[in-house]
Amino acid sequence: MAKITPISGFPEWLPEQRIVEQRVLDELRARFESFGFAPVETRAVEPLEQLLAKGETDKVRYVLRRLRAVGAVAEPDADGLGLHFDLTVPLARYVQQFRGQLAFPFKRYQIQKVWRGERPQRGRYREFYQADLDVVAQDDLPLSVDAEMARLLVDCVSALPVDPLVLGVNNRKILQGAYEALGIGDVAGTLRIVDKLDKVGARGGRVALVAAGLPEPAAYTCLALGRIRTPDASFRDAVRGLGLSGSLLETGLDELAFVMDALDDLPAGRVVANLSIARGLDYYTGTVYEGQIPTDAELGTVCSGGRYDDLVGGGTNVRLPGVGVSIGVTRLLGQALAEGRLAASRPVPTCVLVALRSAATARAARDVAVALRARGVPAEVFHEERPFGKQLKYAQKRGIPYVWFPPADAGAAHEVKDLRSGEQVPADPGAWTPPAADRVPAIVRAGPA
Amino acid sequence: MAKITPISGFPEWLPEQRIVEQRVLDELRARFESFGFAPVETRAVEPLEQLLAKGETDKVRYVLRRLRAVGAVAEPDADGLGLHFDLTVPLARYVQQFRGQLAFPFKRYQIQKVWRGERPQRGRYREFYQADLDVVAQDDLPLSVDAEMARLLVDCVSALPVDPLVLGVNNRKILQGAYEALGIGDVAGTLRIVDKLDKVGARGGRVALVAAGLPEPAAYTCLALGRIRTPDASFRDAVRGLGLSGSLLETGLDELAFVMDALDDLPAGRVVANLSIARGLDYYTGTVYEGQIPTDAELGTVCSGGRYDDLVGGGTNVRLPGVGVSIGVTRLLGQALAEGRLAASRPVPTCVLVALRSAATARAARDVAVALRARGVPAEVFHEERPFGKQLKYAQKRGIPYVWFPPADAGAAHEVKDLRSGEQVPADPGAWTPPAADRVPAIVRAGPA
Repeated sequence: MAKITPISGFPEWLPEQRIVEQRVLDELRARFESFGFAPVETRAVEPLEQLLAKGETDKVRYVLRRLRAVGAVAEPDADGLGLHFDLTVPLARYVQQFRGQLAFPFKRYQIQKVWRGERPQRGRYREFYQADLDVVAQDDLPLSVDAEMARLLVDCVSALPVDPLVLGVNNRKILQGAYEALGIGDVAGTLRIVDKLDKVGARGGRVALVAAGLPEPAAYTCLALGRIRTPDASFRDAVRGLGLSGSLLETGLDELAFVMDALDDLPAGRVVANLSIARGLDYYTGTVYEGQIPTDAELGTVCSGGRYDDLVGGGTNVRLPGVGVSIGVTRLLGQALAEGRLAASRPVPTCVLVALRSAATARAARDVAVALRARGVPAEVFHEERPFGKQLKYAQKRGIPYVWFPPADAGAAHEVKDLRSGEQVPADPGAWTPPAADRVPAIVRAGPA
Repeated sequence: MAKITPISGFPEWLPEQRIVEQRVLDELRARFESFGFAPVETRAVEPLEQLLAKGETDKVRYVLRRLRAVGAVAEPDADGLGLHFDLTVPLARYVQQFRGQLAFPFKRYQIQKVWRGERPQRGRYREFYQADLDVVAQDDLPLSVDAEMARLLVDCVSALPVDPLVLGVNNRKILQGAYEALGIGDVAGTLRIVDKLDKVGARGGRVALVAAGLPEPAAYTCLALGRIRTPDASFRDAVRGLGLSGSLLETGLDELAFVMDALDDLPAGRVVANLSIARGLDYYTGTVYEGQIPTDAELGTVCSGGRYDDLVGGGTNVRLPGVGVSIGVTRLLGQALAEGRLAASRPVPTCVLVALRSAATARAARDVAVALRARGVPAEVFHEERPFGKQLKYAQKRGIPYVWFPPADAGAAHEVKDLRSGEQVPADPGAWTPPAADRVPAIVRAGPA
């Protein structure tokens, strides 16, 4: 057998890491459900025509081919299927497919792995978890939902074992309106350049804009617009200061001001109007979001989203506008897990190891475990007859906090030992409960080494 | 845009169905953890050489190819990766890869989707959930674990919204020992024929065995052996009645008797020694399990597993024997969900819809929702200013049980309406709680229409 090596871009975790990831997914799910979002899970595959037409079209897809193992004959036909690379394209398809059976506005969350065949690099994965929230309405979707989604993002990420999020909000109509006011013909191309400003810098951006055919003053104004960042609705004055006007621009400014005003009760600095945010995706038509963890800038964008007025209708005459956000769970956690800055306090759920005195008393030991589990205390019976010293070592190696000793003689007392303090006390299997903090593994965060 | 149609073999659920599936996955996970099994999730892909060498080699695999969307140029190289078709092959690889970082015996559970490129048929899927439990030891794994795994299967399935499970248990050594005693050379080939007895019947089985070169009397004895079913360890006498003996056979009989004796406290009929069970997989070496729901025989095998002494070592000189079981979650639930015999009582988690009196009082409405969520009550605020009649209709359509009315004047009382009884009463947003049964959607089971 060949040596087993990891596959680059496909992260895998030890149990003490997976426990953290699972806890985070649970927390997100609980928050999403507490806001009334319904769970949806879509199949991992979509027809290739869907995968190629939408989303970040420069990303590499995984295509499926069937292979019969006996003789390893590859079937010529690939069924035309590929793995989904996000959860938005599947949502658009799902809503169209099940439209008659869904109630609108349709509020759904979806937490699944997605796959991208890109060259792996630090913080980038080929297989990773995304957690998406979307609201899709029939005909009209009020702007208050755009604010609500921003609030949800901030609320959800603040519940996770990561540093505070700063969520940038912008509105595509501001950028498009400004570009129109500047007489720029290629709005989409300009958006793509502006979207990369953080990566290429102001000078690189200006060069790219001029190379794309923009006059120097227009390029300058585009860059000046993208530098506007305000903690409230005061971005309006800064935009007017650039001498820009127009009805689309005004609509965008009104919409963004509405969203910022609706969020003014959040802690200062959590949400920022950031007029550089464009988002690369074609389908956004209004509000756009992009969140970073400023104390860990290397992570890049950890959540993002926006409003799309035409994604879901897909060419039919039904209008299904939506607004959605996506949290990059693996990106948020991956490095901290890999570097050991984030881990569970023990690699097993077990809170109590029930010691096995002898094979003859296995049933009595089992009954203790059954009684503990019935009160929500994860418990396992040691699996074979061995000296207690070996059994204690088994528990210590796994960080199991308690070892239970059933009595040698019927009628004698059970005892439970706390392996951390060494204290051993009599205990009733039908009543004893550990402190809540010991019941399940704790999540332990540490600063960088 | 082309008409959207389902893809055969890739089931997808509406929220009211997905809520059931999720509840079942939660229940399994909670049980697994209560027994001390640690969570593991492996990447969806494995190297093709692993996928082709192990497991049910007649099954069709999905192979990955990368496709750059711009210009749709397929990359010639497939990275040599395919989607996993079970969770056992990935476990064997995972344990080898992380051996130095795991504590043995290693008890893990794993709940994930797997993919098989087979022709879909009723009750068979191309993408489906499996929930696996395995214990892998270094050097030796006591037989008591074989009994414990059977107990866990019965315990876990009994917690699900399905009819009672009957778990058949056998031991490969009995069949192999008997075949040796009968002078049968091709043990593996005979096992494969015996494994299909339920499908082809006794007559078809005898024809196949004779065609495979067995003398008529040996074929007869194989079939007679396969007909033995006892609720306890009395199968011994029946086997001896066939005039068979041999040391491997005796070991198998002892092991199976040990397992059956250890389970004799379970309700009668839950576990049966069934000497027809062979399991098609090459890697089983001792105990084998196969569970059915007798009241829904069409489902076929809904859980299975066994002991493997050589799977994980994989040709190295490390012995890592294991015993594992797998629950076919999608197979267990799929038809009942698809036929509407199993569904959640409402398609949304929302327990309380907070009515929106006017845009000006949106904050007051939001504060009610925040207070309810803080006590674990899923709540959403209606998304726009509309007559209360419309808002009540929104709640009714989704089966949301309660609508909350914030007061028109500060100082007046909040009120909450139970939409089922129509009763509307004053309520304090900081104290009111619904009955526990209303908090989350209930799982509703019905007989076939």
